[in-house]
Amino acid sequence: MATAIREMHVRGAGLIGASAGYGMYLSAIEATVRPAAAEVDEQLAHAAAQLKATRPTAVNLSWAVERQLKNIAEGKGATEKIAIALRTARSIADEDAEHCKMIGQHGLELIRKIAEQKAGERVNVLTHCNAGWLAFVDYGSATAPIYAAHDGGLPVHVWVAETRPRNQGSKLTAWELGEHGVPHTIIADSASGHLMQRGAVDLVIVGTDRTTFTGDVANKIGTYLKALAAKDNGVPFYVALPSSSFDWELRDGLKEIPIEERSPDEVKHADGWHDGQQVEVRVGPEGSPAANYGFDVTPAHLITGLITERGVCKATEKSIRALFPDQAP
Amino acid sequence: MATAIREMHVRGAGLIGASAGYGMYLSAIEATVRPAAAEVDEQLAHAAAQLKATRPTAVNLSWAVERQLKNIAEGKGATEKIAIALRTARSIADEDAEHCKMIGQHGLELIRKIAEQKAGERVNVLTHCNAGWLAFVDYGSATAPIYAAHDGGLPVHVWVAETRPRNQGSKLTAWELGEHGVPHTIIADSASGHLMQRGAVDLVIVGTDRTTFTGDVANKIGTYLKALAAKDNGVPFYVALPSSSFDWELRDGLKEIPIEERSPDEVKHADGWHDGQQVEVRVGPEGSPAANYGFDVTPAHLITGLITERGVCKATEKSIRALFPDQAP
Repeated sequence: MATAIREMHVRGAGLIGASAGYGMYLSAIEATVRPAAAEVDEQLAHAAAQLKATRPTAVNLSWAVERQLKNIAEGKGATEKIAIALRTARSIADEDAEHCKMIGQHGLELIRKIAEQKAGERVNVLTHCNAGWLAFVDYGSATAPIYAAHDGGLPVHVWVAETRPRNQGSKLTAWELGEHGVPHTIIADSASGHLMQRGAVDLVIVGTDRTTFTGDVANKIGTYLKALAAKDNGVPFYVALPSSSFDWELRDGLKEIPIEERSPDEVKHADGWHDGQQVEVRVGPEGSPAANYGFDVTPAHLITGLITERGVCKATEKSIRALFPDQAP
Repeated sequence: MATAIREMHVRGAGLIGASAGYGMYLSAIEATVRPAAAEVDEQLAHAAAQLKATRPTAVNLSWAVERQLKNIAEGKGATEKIAIALRTARSIADEDAEHCKMIGQHGLELIRKIAEQKAGERVNVLTHCNAGWLAFVDYGSATAPIYAAHDGGLPVHVWVAETRPRNQGSKLTAWELGEHGVPHTIIADSASGHLMQRGAVDLVIVGTDRTTFTGDVANKIGTYLKALAAKDNGVPFYVALPSSSFDWELRDGLKEIPIEERSPDEVKHADGWHDGQQVEVRVGPEGSPAANYGFDVTPAHLITGLITERGVCKATEKSIRALFPDQAP
């Protein structure tokens, strides 16, 4: 499971969390080949460290691992610990699906209001990367309101930013939307500002890998640029997240959220289909170095609101805490 | 020549202008197979219209064609017209080289000042697309100050935005800089804001395809997003241009500059090298539509200054006219 997360066979905030949950369960099973319960704890501590080291930015990862460690510690003996691990893994996954479903309902209301103002004209939502059901256990975060709107008969169209270097936009989000029958158009990441200047975007909805309790949002590299353009053009900019993506410990997103640096090869290459084969091509000179920052941080003041499973709130500490009073800092 | 410009075998503001100049000369020669001078004019009018229709955004194109038409009209008979066309084409090309050389000298002073402030630390310049010598007759516009700084022994390093969908950044600018020995790093277009937030960019220099006399800048799609990020982070944002890239007729860049829309196939595909072959891969689902806007407009208020062959000025009508008082209207 650590390999699957690190190499991005599974990716996306919710899915990383759910995978890590089941990773801990698998690790607990692994430990049963050993006799003593003490060794289960040792095995789990090792698995926890290994899983948490796979990707630094997504907070769902450490959130799921910590939740497992806390719950499993209450079990007595290997068999009970394994049973708890399985229950917890299932809960993490089921809650993710449930929370995303609720995000869809709350976000739907935002789209419905715009649709009413536009009196039947299509509502243009812009999104970045993939925060769809391929990134979560079900529904997705950023796409959940879109699916809810489409299924509810609202005329929604999605601008899908391709999201270089790994193209999660064009490869995953466009595919998801296409499968669901939602009208969409792929654009280069650079085109988002131009579209907003021309009034072609009514609403931006993106996901997040970690959001501070003060409302700073880490998300796929390029999100910050889209937020700046939205602000400059008066376009509402929303971030959709289950509460598992909040970091209740970090106050300053820009200074404190660790930003993953991935292999420069991802920037130097593009992969896609050629003659029915999946092929990777090199898009820059062999001798040129590249740098590959996976995420950026959008400061809270650029964000119109956060769409959570409990409703929509402002990207401020006060508003977030009002919605989640049960969360300790 | 029209095909070469349309299909981007030649591209870049200066090179499009110079190519159009020689295109008019070639057309004048073509006309000599016909007997009467009247037919030369007819042939040239046809060529002018054909060349001007190739690409809508770059103003150097119509500027070069109009200059040829005006000059050639003064010639008597086909032979004289051809001679004038050749002289004019050569002037357009030579002036472009000379102007870019001067842009290099004026821009060098900006880099030198930053280098002095940084006391030996490397100066990080970010650029987008290719406004280098592959885009002009020589030197380039945006890269001219960089080459001048590097050749003058200043420790300059360039962040090269890859510039999807055609990757003029990673394919042309990175190659140019590498050939010249200038340290550089390729990044995804989306990474520019993150780098500025982290203080890793001292200066942005880009080119332009058309700049209004009020200072609004049309340039490769994505330039506007970089300008927003520069403003948000207090990073100086300069546009380098020979005066041939000014449009002396348009006041409102956002409303008036025509933005080229190119084939969606460019967004749906990426091309590069695979096993020593140039291969094009499809990066999005076959059934998903795409949109491909070639340029965007950066409003003047986001621009720190314009680097022209006559010196650096503010991106305001007053400052531009003070530097070019000889330009009507």
